[in-house]
Amino acid sequence: MDFLNSHNEIGLVEEKTFVCSTRFSLSNGQFLDGFQLRYECYGELNPAKDNAIYICHALTGDHHVAGIYHAKDDKPGWWNHVVGPGKPLDTNRFFIVSSNCLGGCRGSTGPSSHRPDASGEPCGASFPDLSIRDMVRAQRALIDHLGITGLHAVVGGSMGGMQALQWVVEYPGFARNAIIIAATAQHSVQTIAFNEAGRRSIRGDLEWQDGNYDKNKGPNQGLSVARMMAHITYLSDVGMEEKFGGDQRLNPSSDFEFSVQGYLDHQGKKFIDRFDANSYLKLTEALDRFDLFGESGLQEAVSKVETRTLVIAFSSDWLYTPKQNKQIVDALLQAGKDASYLEIDHSHGHDSFLIDSGPFLQALDVFLQTDENKKVESMEVDGFRKLRNRYEVKKEADFRAIDDWVCPKDKVLDLGCGRGLLLEHLRETKQVQGLGVDWELNKSISCVARKVPIYQEEILEALAKFNDDSFDWVIFSRMVESLPEPGKILEQALRVGRKVAVSFVNHGYWRNRANFLFQGKRVCNEVYPHQWESSHLSNHFSIREFEDFCLRLQAEGMKVKLGRKMFYRGDWVKHCFVLPNLRAGLAIYEIIKGD
Amino acid sequence: MDFLNSHNEIGLVEEKTFVCSTRFSLSNGQFLDGFQLRYECYGELNPAKDNAIYICHALTGDHHVAGIYHAKDDKPGWWNHVVGPGKPLDTNRFFIVSSNCLGGCRGSTGPSSHRPDASGEPCGASFPDLSIRDMVRAQRALIDHLGITGLHAVVGGSMGGMQALQWVVEYPGFARNAIIIAATAQHSVQTIAFNEAGRRSIRGDLEWQDGNYDKNKGPNQGLSVARMMAHITYLSDVGMEEKFGGDQRLNPSSDFEFSVQGYLDHQGKKFIDRFDANSYLKLTEALDRFDLFGESGLQEAVSKVETRTLVIAFSSDWLYTPKQNKQIVDALLQAGKDASYLEIDHSHGHDSFLIDSGPFLQALDVFLQTDENKKVESMEVDGFRKLRNRYEVKKEADFRAIDDWVCPKDKVLDLGCGRGLLLEHLRETKQVQGLGVDWELNKSISCVARKVPIYQEEILEALAKFNDDSFDWVIFSRMVESLPEPGKILEQALRVGRKVAVSFVNHGYWRNRANFLFQGKRVCNEVYPHQWESSHLSNHFSIREFEDFCLRLQAEGMKVKLGRKMFYRGDWVKHCFVLPNLRAGLAIYEIIKGD
Repeated sequence: MDFLNSHNEIGLVEEKTFVCSTRFSLSNGQFLDGFQLRYECYGELNPAKDNAIYICHALTGDHHVAGIYHAKDDKPGWWNHVVGPGKPLDTNRFFIVSSNCLGGCRGSTGPSSHRPDASGEPCGASFPDLSIRDMVRAQRALIDHLGITGLHAVVGGSMGGMQALQWVVEYPGFARNAIIIAATAQHSVQTIAFNEAGRRSIRGDLEWQDGNYDKNKGPNQGLSVARMMAHITYLSDVGMEEKFGGDQRLNPSSDFEFSVQGYLDHQGKKFIDRFDANSYLKLTEALDRFDLFGESGLQEAVSKVETRTLVIAFSSDWLYTPKQNKQIVDALLQAGKDASYLEIDHSHGHDSFLIDSGPFLQALDVFLQTDENKKVESMEVDGFRKLRNRYEVKKEADFRAIDDWVCPKDKVLDLGCGRGLLLEHLRETKQVQGLGVDWELNKSISCVARKVPIYQEEILEALAKFNDDSFDWVIFSRMVESLPEPGKILEQALRVGRKVAVSFVNHGYWRNRANFLFQGKRVCNEVYPHQWESSHLSNHFSIREFEDFCLRLQAEGMKVKLGRKMFYRGDWVKHCFVLPNLRAGLAIYEIIKGD
Repeated sequence: MDFLNSHNEIGLVEEKTFVCSTRFSLSNGQFLDGFQLRYECYGELNPAKDNAIYICHALTGDHHVAGIYHAKDDKPGWWNHVVGPGKPLDTNRFFIVSSNCLGGCRGSTGPSSHRPDASGEPCGASFPDLSIRDMVRAQRALIDHLGITGLHAVVGGSMGGMQALQWVVEYPGFARNAIIIAATAQHSVQTIAFNEAGRRSIRGDLEWQDGNYDKNKGPNQGLSVARMMAHITYLSDVGMEEKFGGDQRLNPSSDFEFSVQGYLDHQGKKFIDRFDANSYLKLTEALDRFDLFGESGLQEAVSKVETRTLVIAFSSDWLYTPKQNKQIVDALLQAGKDASYLEIDHSHGHDSFLIDSGPFLQALDVFLQTDENKKVESMEVDGFRKLRNRYEVKKEADFRAIDDWVCPKDKVLDLGCGRGLLLEHLRETKQVQGLGVDWELNKSISCVARKVPIYQEEILEALAKFNDDSFDWVIFSRMVESLPEPGKILEQALRVGRKVAVSFVNHGYWRNRANFLFQGKRVCNEVYPHQWESSHLSNHFSIREFEDFCLRLQAEGMKVKLGRKMFYRGDWVKHCFVLPNLRAGLAIYEIIKGD
């Protein structure tokens, strides 16, 4: 790879130093007599100064995100595949800033910095405890120093994702967008336990000397064990098996019996050359203490957020699990914010965010698009307004009915939203505030590209998370038939929304009946495309069954009533007014909560 | 708890020592000049000497399985809830033996034993490398010494499960039964990595002294970190959250910020008092090297097994995962052995096998039942021969047809076997060799109680594991309608079996048609018990659809033909000969592979 001259490489970059010489208060009540941050910038700040993106690095990462330091440097920055000309964080359009975090050991003020006195000794154990918030406040000072009055986005993975989250909480609206990747609002007990074992390993090393080790010595043994252990948590069981299992399991030619031993040994050794043990202690403690749940809960913590947020988790990440990432989105959505969640199926575990993978890069790319610079033409082909064939017309029928019913500025939850066509249309025509739920990643990425907030999740899981009466409308567009025990799900929808719109293919349609009567088998056409043996499980129903269900709900004392209904004939175009259960191919119902 | 006098407690027990003074060869070519094992026995060896059960302990366990050492001892053995009068390993019926493993540090010969010379020093680093096989061979010497010529069972969890597995491989038929719990035939790369980090912690401790530390000193710091880390892998994320999360997360009154820190500290400290670092190194290395896959594969390794085996995994065990436990069963089944698999849903992770939980104890109990001593009366109520109501008659209809078709000594795979009634009946009447597959634990435990081998698994997952032509019959008794894309599954069944029997409720039955025609909704009766809104997803089909599918298979060139068929009317009793797709309520087909 030619990192120097290729047209989509940044090429040479250089480190800079920001010195803040005023007193800097810390969350724990202590203060620093000023500090410095080592940082790098790529791209150009535009005249409006509104194209800056701040990148926060992970625990053992640093400010060297992309590019190389000299012509023969073959190790570019850690996110070089993400940041550069034409890449998702496009340096042709954005001005990218990243700094080594406060407390780090790559040029920013931290435990290995010299004491302010003349001794020349490192601060060591005397360096104060830091919080994630302290680190973010120092980053803000750098951004102010650069004359930036608002960020296009703040982006980070792992500890960087927690910092990005702290950014949007700490400075409402300062960043217009945020991408929080493989992060958490609170460490799990298991993660704290692993960190504690690592810290014990460092502090138990006799060379640690209560943190006051000499500059070129230190608890190397303890630090390398801590790193080895932590490194296992960054990978996944499956990923490790792919890399060091099977034929690669044994390593007879080397000093190590098993390949993974040699790999861990290398990781441990490399680490003690580039990382300071006291920094490792301070940073892991800051992570363990980071807790946006606090006493009032996460929803309260994010209540002032004014940033459009995308949270991305990886399926095999067991350090900051999909569940933990979803907690962030849940809280943002419960607080009524613009938030999206994507879950990428990847075997590399927590470190997946460092891997060059298509869907991940695509998600970053489409989320950061600005209106001037959309790249979604390829997706608009299947859009609301461009219909390609008869089946496309069918897809439209219930959208148009629901479009009629929804009022301007309504809050709408679309369950099984697909590529977000309906919600995009409702936003553009009625300023509707929409949220889509779909479990397919590629469809969810299309939603992100349309700037439709999307929760990539199973419908039942997602529904259970919303507060009562969170939405004006909950929409099921031809997907109830794929839900088990739909009654329970519809009851959940009626808890969450004031009105529910259900569109469905009427299974009682005369052709289905006739076919079943005369042939004793199901119909097979464009609406029911599969023969029995290739069918997925389903739960088709008729208009009559649906109405019977609503009557049973009322009989059970639930305060609901049927509102508007629309029936279409078999062509899904012409309306149908009489004998709908026999004559209608498609039905759309409004269910209204209340007396 | 009164551990001394209660009628279902063993009460006082005492340690014994077995000394083998002959030379003992080890797997690595070295040898021991004799060895000793510390052991305990409970219950009485019967005159036939056929009621002995050997229990193998886990890595840091020992031979003190149950009972107490003195009247005020309030800490009974580690499996006291499992072993005792009337407990699953019932000391009223069985003679229980357990020993501290070779290489251990609780009284058996290991690195902390004195050198054979007069120095009185421990062997330390000079103690030879051991294998799991060496440990099992030493256990066999003890069993021989006790005059036992065959074991009723060998039982063990974790490392003990791996030893139990080695027992059945090493001594074909010596143990009639084996229970392998939370074990693996080969460590995952992740597990080796964790063990290696732990060993690095020990060996990096300056007190380790290349393994030649003094008796009362040693690498305590390194050992305690290794233990802390390993202990995390014995628990689960969810289990840790339940115990140390939420309101228990912080621990302001103690020396530790987070509760889990104090817990780990305690675990680490306790461990250095009771465990020898060199033993820990030797045993973890023996575990990492245990590999029954070897070069010829696991199926080859278990090819001589003659033991009825039950493998039990726990859903939250991420150290020896359900997948790893299933590999053992897969190999045994592929080699044609009598093996069962149960998976217990439990949040305690790997250590679940140490927890007092109902289904686990029940599984041990019913598996170890001898014919003289069955406890399954309560289950026989829903047996093949005792019918309680009209619905029970219906359950019988297809069983009787399949019963007619299956030949004596056939090998039969029953997919969705429920409580194993059919397979029990076929075994008792025709010596059929059956295997059931069902994903429900309680039904699977009933199968174990009936001595019907059971694989608790999803049908598709299970089917994919069997070799071509493994069975004479593959049976789907009224469950194809709950399978997505059943065509693929039936093709798999035709790969695995020579013949396939499919019984199904004929959806083309005239009542269904009439109901749909006139009412435009589904029928709701004892066969289709749910209204639409409380239905699970399904894929009902008719006789015609099934036959059409078989024709399509043939048209695609697959060599299959339809054999015998049986149709029953709506009462599922009277036969039906004309217009079956209209008149039959239940259909049973034989599909035969071949020209």
